[in-house]
Amino acid sequence: MSSRPAPFGLFGAAAGSAIFQLIREAGPLARADIGRITGLSKSTVSQHVERLLRLGLVTEEPDARYPAGRKRKQLVFNESAGYVVAIDLGATSVDIALCDLGASVLEHRELLDVAVSDGPQRVLGRIVEQVDDLLAKHAITPDQLYGMGMGVPGPVEFSTGHPIHPPIMPGWHKYPIKEFLTERYGCLVYIDNDVNVMAVGEAKYGAGVGVENQLFVKIGSGIGCGVILGGRLYRGTHGCAGDIGHISLRGNEELCSCGNRGCLEAIASGRALSRLGTRLAMDGESFELAQVLTQKGTVSAEDIAYLARRGDPLSLSLLRMSGQAIGEVLAGIINFINPSLIVVGGGVSKSGQRLIATIKEVILSKSTPLATSTLEVVPSKLGGMAGVIGAAALVVDEVFSQERVFAMVNQEGMPSAGGD
Amino acid sequence: MSSRPAPFGLFGAAAGSAIFQLIREAGPLARADIGRITGLSKSTVSQHVERLLRLGLVTEEPDARYPAGRKRKQLVFNESAGYVVAIDLGATSVDIALCDLGASVLEHRELLDVAVSDGPQRVLGRIVEQVDDLLAKHAITPDQLYGMGMGVPGPVEFSTGHPIHPPIMPGWHKYPIKEFLTERYGCLVYIDNDVNVMAVGEAKYGAGVGVENQLFVKIGSGIGCGVILGGRLYRGTHGCAGDIGHISLRGNEELCSCGNRGCLEAIASGRALSRLGTRLAMDGESFELAQVLTQKGTVSAEDIAYLARRGDPLSLSLLRMSGQAIGEVLAGIINFINPSLIVVGGGVSKSGQRLIATIKEVILSKSTPLATSTLEVVPSKLGGMAGVIGAAALVVDEVFSQERVFAMVNQEGMPSAGGD
Repeated sequence: MSSRPAPFGLFGAAAGSAIFQLIREAGPLARADIGRITGLSKSTVSQHVERLLRLGLVTEEPDARYPAGRKRKQLVFNESAGYVVAIDLGATSVDIALCDLGASVLEHRELLDVAVSDGPQRVLGRIVEQVDDLLAKHAITPDQLYGMGMGVPGPVEFSTGHPIHPPIMPGWHKYPIKEFLTERYGCLVYIDNDVNVMAVGEAKYGAGVGVENQLFVKIGSGIGCGVILGGRLYRGTHGCAGDIGHISLRGNEELCSCGNRGCLEAIASGRALSRLGTRLAMDGESFELAQVLTQKGTVSAEDIAYLARRGDPLSLSLLRMSGQAIGEVLAGIINFINPSLIVVGGGVSKSGQRLIATIKEVILSKSTPLATSTLEVVPSKLGGMAGVIGAAALVVDEVFSQERVFAMVNQEGMPSAGGD
Repeated sequence: MSSRPAPFGLFGAAAGSAIFQLIREAGPLARADIGRITGLSKSTVSQHVERLLRLGLVTEEPDARYPAGRKRKQLVFNESAGYVVAIDLGATSVDIALCDLGASVLEHRELLDVAVSDGPQRVLGRIVEQVDDLLAKHAITPDQLYGMGMGVPGPVEFSTGHPIHPPIMPGWHKYPIKEFLTERYGCLVYIDNDVNVMAVGEAKYGAGVGVENQLFVKIGSGIGCGVILGGRLYRGTHGCAGDIGHISLRGNEELCSCGNRGCLEAIASGRALSRLGTRLAMDGESFELAQVLTQKGTVSAEDIAYLARRGDPLSLSLLRMSGQAIGEVLAGIINFINPSLIVVGGGVSKSGQRLIATIKEVILSKSTPLATSTLEVVPSKLGGMAGVIGAAALVVDEVFSQERVFAMVNQEGMPSAGGD
């Protein structure tokens, strides 16, 4: 034993998994670095590293900082040891990506000819078709496919992977997506709400890297929020944490799709903007909006954002009202949960800087000074890729959970098919 | 290794601390139970148990379920191995309790002749006087005093134990309470916000035992909330999580003590009720309230609660307005954090069932059905003792944190560090 005591629990077999996690999260690392960080002896480190090399979970590469002659080597997590498939099921499109174990996208496909409202059979059929093709094209064997992750646009019971009364997903209530994919591909499968998945993507690889407590707010046709606390996705008791779209605002009597009145979503979402814009156009309140209505038969949130950028006062006031309402709700949430960061994403958020500026302004005026003293509000970094990257990150994290790594390292085996 | 694999990390020295935590949290347990639960061999369990017995951290007692002749024994956490002092600093009183390591109160004293506004020197002087007396009376030696926990009525930076601009604690901003007590008593000292401390008390020993995600809402002269997520107190990025008193409500223009307008606290707290009641009494709106004002010179929240119970319509409507506003704010919070339980405490909450009933009614009508499907809203179980019991629980948990238990158990020197 070296002079530095090893941290709690870092003994025997546990050391092997700890060394692997260290390489995965903080690598590349030389063997000596690992000894220094863990306090384990040179021979103990070597013993475990040899096993990780044999398992193919890490590789040892020359350290580029030293001349070739010196032969200094570093241990690197072998991101190519396996693959995951990430799926982002949107309202009117499906994104599918083949990723390595570092959640890097190797190939990405976007299906625009399939909508979630087509129902599970048709949608899953199209997904399977593409996944089969991706696996064949990249010559990936069943034992190389470690897992699949999928985000869906509705509430999901995470443990079972079943959608629960998803409003915009007719036919999907309690549909056994997880069982279906597990049976077909024999790998780990995780299904979650799309906003949760995007929050994980931004937190791991996007605008929120390294931030302990952060919220991902999606402003699209609906409004939702993914909650990352202590660096981990928080789902709540029934898996519906982050449902800010149905927080109601005093004095707001708009009827919401949920049946209640006054919900944030009923005045601030893309759907609400479209409805309110159409109403104003029909009432002849705005010449510009009326023109759009005549041309297209409807006014979309994108139309309003476009007209706002061109200076149309009513479109500007619609976006301002949306930002104001979202800001008010977030101000309360910020007092309550005291995060360090708010990442704003979703289609409507891309309409320009004005919406995020209004949201920030309201937060600063309505949240307490202590809660906002170091708070940042920033746009999404991953944009439309947040869903697939998040789905990949979600499943990779599950594949390399403490328990699974422990089993992998000690059974000299890879995660077995369906080994949950 | 036995036929059942031991859980992750349960090897070598780590097993000793794991066995101790198991006995502390799930005891009394027979040695055979420990073997069954951990998967460790009989001889390994025995070896560690003997050490815990020698250290005095556990005792072995006859199992009362068996006749004396059978000599079946159980291992029990030795709650008398040491002591902690718990302090609840209120606005106009101080509660001090000597507790054992099970957070059971051995002696409790309430000082009513000292107010937090007297400033740190006088208040801490009075506390030290009582603590010294308690320790002497119970013949507790310095090495038997494991720690001190204290709740204070204002924001606290937990890591330093410094109050940060506490509005009702003049002279306490950044006062080194923790350093002062550590230097004097040479034990672990933890200072936290009073509502956080109460939340821990209710979660560990009160209305919230065994519930993963719960909120403790204090309705007193102010309004605050303690947030327990995944069974642990969540403090947020700056330690100010749970600050629901300054969430603002649209259409509410009351000036708050924080300088903002429209805060929940400005219309729903005990202080707000008192101010609104006094105003109504002066305006001659209510004969009953005017009578109280004439007799006492002011109308307190307790007076309003008393008159409401006697049927005074204006007092009833004040309480209803308070419950309505608190319910609206909580409804939003519930959608966002999806807890299983809300525990309501604090002076005003004791005014009768009516307030909690109104709060429940608003929550059910404004939160989503999924978020409230199994939600319970219950009154505090520990009442006025939540603060001291919580402070004791907080410090006991820190005393027996994984790292500290590991150090305690290994002080003697464990066998084969690094071996299985």
